[in-house]
Amino acid sequence: MDGNEKAQHNRDAFQIERVILFTDAVFAIAITLLVIEIKVPELEHPTEQAVQVVLAHLIPKFVGFFLSFFIIAIYWTAHHRIFRFVRRLDNRLLWLNLVFLLSIILMPFTTAYQSEYSLLRTPWILYSINIAFTGLMQIALQRHLSNARHKLVAHPEHEHPDLDIARPLMSPVVFISSIALAFVLPPLALRMIPAVAFPLLAFLNRKRHKRLTAAYHGKHGATVLA
Amino acid sequence: MDGNEKAQHNRDAFQIERVILFTDAVFAIAITLLVIEIKVPELEHPTEQAVQVVLAHLIPKFVGFFLSFFIIAIYWTAHHRIFRFVRRLDNRLLWLNLVFLLSIILMPFTTAYQSEYSLLRTPWILYSINIAFTGLMQIALQRHLSNARHKLVAHPEHEHPDLDIARPLMSPVVFISSIALAFVLPPLALRMIPAVAFPLLAFLNRKRHKRLTAAYHGKHGATVLA
Amino acid sequence: MDGNEKAQHNRDAFQIERVILFTDAVFAIAITLLVIEIKVPELEHPTEQAVQVVLAHLIPKFVGFFLSFFIIAIYWTAHHRIFRFVRRLDNRLLWLNLVFLLSIILMPFTTAYQSEYSLLRTPWILYSINIAFTGLMQIALQRHLSNARHKLVAHPEHEHPDLDIARPLMSPVVFISSIALAFVLPPLALRMIPAVAFPLLAFLNRKRHKRLTAAYHGKHGATVLA
Amino acid sequence: MDGNEKAQHNRDAFQIERVILFTDAVFAIAITLLVIEIKVPELEHPTEQAVQVVLAHLIPKFVGFFLSFFIIAIYWTAHHRIFRFVRRLDNRLLWLNLVFLLSIILMPFTTAYQSEYSLLRTPWILYSINIAFTGLMQIALQRHLSNARHKLVAHPEHEHPDLDIARPLMSPVVFISSIALAFVLPPLALRMIPAVAFPLLAFLNRKRHKRLTAAYHGKHGATVLA
Repeated sequence: MDGNEKAQHNRDAFQIERVILFTDAVFAIAITLLVIEIKVPELEHPTEQAVQVVLAHLIPKFVGFFLSFFIIAIYWTAHHRIFRFVRRLDNRLLWLNLVFLLSIILMPFTTAYQSEYSLLRTPWILYSINIAFTGLMQIALQRHLSNARHKLVAHPEHEHPDLDIARPLMSPVVFISSIALAFVLPPLALRMIPAVAFPLLAFLNRKRHKRLTAAYHGKHGATVLA
Repeated sequence: MDGNEKAQHNRDAFQIERVILFTDAVFAIAITLLVIEIKVPELEHPTEQAVQVVLAHLIPKFVGFFLSFFIIAIYWTAHHRIFRFVRRLDNRLLWLNLVFLLSIILMPFTTAYQSEYSLLRTPWILYSINIAFTGLMQIALQRHLSNARHKLVAHPEHEHPDLDIARPLMSPVVFISSIALAFVLPPLALRMIPAVAFPLLAFLNRKRHKRLTAAYHGKHGATVLA
Repeated sequence: MDGNEKAQHNRDAFQIERVILFTDAVFAIAITLLVIEIKVPELEHPTEQAVQVVLAHLIPKFVGFFLSFFIIAIYWTAHHRIFRFVRRLDNRLLWLNLVFLLSIILMPFTTAYQSEYSLLRTPWILYSINIAFTGLMQIALQRHLSNARHKLVAHPEHEHPDLDIARPLMSPVVFISSIALAFVLPPLALRMIPAVAFPLLAFLNRKRHKRLTAAYHGKHGATVLA
Repeated sequence: MDGNEKAQHNRDAFQIERVILFTDAVFAIAITLLVIEIKVPELEHPTEQAVQVVLAHLIPKFVGFFLSFFIIAIYWTAHHRIFRFVRRLDNRLLWLNLVFLLSIILMPFTTAYQSEYSLLRTPWILYSINIAFTGLMQIALQRHLSNARHKLVAHPEHEHPDLDIARPLMSPVVFISSIALAFVLPPLALRMIPAVAFPLLAFLNRKRHKRLTAAYHGKHGATVLA
């Protein structure tokens, strides 16, 4: 590489970093805004007992906060994992990423809505649609990256097991199922589904991921990206 | 380059990156704040039907949210596209960028105002002024960059089609027209104008951009920045 | 290092930087959100005297704001200090960091709760749990980094005095003690405990840190990271 | 530089960048939060006239918003200008910077307070104290950097005119004067002082800066940082 090529290369690298750091800023704000939906109620006659009652009434909101915190955190780690392969941007990747972020930005609202009305079905359905949509956008991102024709990822990394769509598929499967079950199960039971389904699916996925990793290294040698 | 020159060069590069990352942080916050204007209403007697009605009443706010999300996203991609040319900062570029950001920062307010009163003309006019102003600031930024005398951009990139002002001109044209039409059309119809005008103008602009790109490469050779 | 190894090295470095910059964004938002919990009250008949009374009533909120500002700032400097050692990421480090951030994100809420009810015990206990938990997470992070088997830190820096857990232990000790004392002391006195305990413990810790630094340099030579 | 020294150098550079990018995130949030203090009022019977009246009543808030936007923007450009000299961090620089940020974080509150009660003196005094304090912290930062003994800045840049304290002194002088004048002038006139005083002082300062720059280059040659 001569000086010009190097400058061009640095510029391209920074353009990618800029997309990633913008993404992280949106993630950071969305995950932190979750907590401002939990308001400290004002009391006319505050006593120890009154403020404890107030806190107890906020429990559904805290449950909603923790659930969304971990969901957003999981999507952030996923973004961190898959964007390490990106070597080149195209317009489509930029916009898939922006629509992915749109679904992240909506989470403080859908979280507040479902945890404000934690005994109802409708808010859970909206919340589930939001998260399923995020998962589908992650799949769209991964499929775009793993398509060798786009040359966004260095060969042979477009076949890397971290771009396998089984993992991002878990979340849409769980949450779309929970929408179907919303008409059968009581609303509070719906909120338990992720806690039951995810560990099970994660266990199955880990086995699949190991198998894919072995196959990937068998095909391309151990020197490729772990 | 000796050690000192290299250190100086890295420092200058970081000063530019700092402006860009500050810009991205402002964009990220403005785009995420759009959603906190959509508040979950409190209900005394929440039922499935009541929370669905509540959601239905929020539809104009969601329409406003989606419109502003895509407008801010478009301006972010524009900033991402044009600042990749920047090789040097001057004071004027810094302040043009800050005033550009001022108009981005105002969007959560003008969005909330126009979607709270979606049946009225006045809020739409204010909103249109806000977006037209953003477009005009983008034009000011591009003109400043493409002025060869300022040496902010490496030769011959100041002639790059991505610095052509036809694209950023679309948004002021559409929104200033919508202000004029505000006195003729019913307020709801005004909100449809961008959805109709942008695809049409984008189509025309794509043709122009292709023509300009061919001319640019014809003049400077294929090795220049794509 | 050949070209491929260098690219791989740059990529790994950026993956670490990304975790750190995401962390900083969360810190920046949490520390800035502290102030939006302090609302300007609306007055029907604003006079100089009325707005001064309003301000006087906000004093407990400002005290809470300043306390939390410095606590979050201290944890940020701690993160800045300990993550400079990180040479490699693993999944556990990523998640320990995210749970650490969870406790930072909760601070605007627990701060608002304890400064809204500054004459009560319960809010102080919740606040103390929050901060003690942050301290425990910092200890978990440091223990994970200083475990040589994980190879996250270059040898011999896993023994660096800045990874000593005496310093992050101070905060849990002080705040858990204040919970115990909450049943003996009046609520306002509880709020004084940090102001008394920290300078004392910081003094003791400085002596310990000097001793550890001398031992570290004695063992590994003066060339290692200061 | 061998490999180890280079790694150490990159690490030190990133530690400085991290401080700067954290600072920028706080600035970005504070400047964007200014606008959420401007709330869209709800109307029971919204008409064109009613929403125009609502907007007219928000004018003092917009004036306050614009004033604070430009003040925060000026301090950001100042930080951008002076931190380009930083070659090394010490603990004192870290904490001076954090206290500087504390005063930036308070601005959304003091802005809201002074623009909510724009006909009163007290809120303006608090606002002026806030800004004067920011200016004093900038002076403290610059004095710390320009002290050659600390070796935070490469020789001879500690004598660079951009570290001259005349410029950051303007803001405390103007705002502390406005506090004194608060007991003589009517409250609305106070708000005009910055608009009158700053252009005048900026003009005087530009002349001084030119003189200092000439002296600096005369002493150290033209090759030093412009």
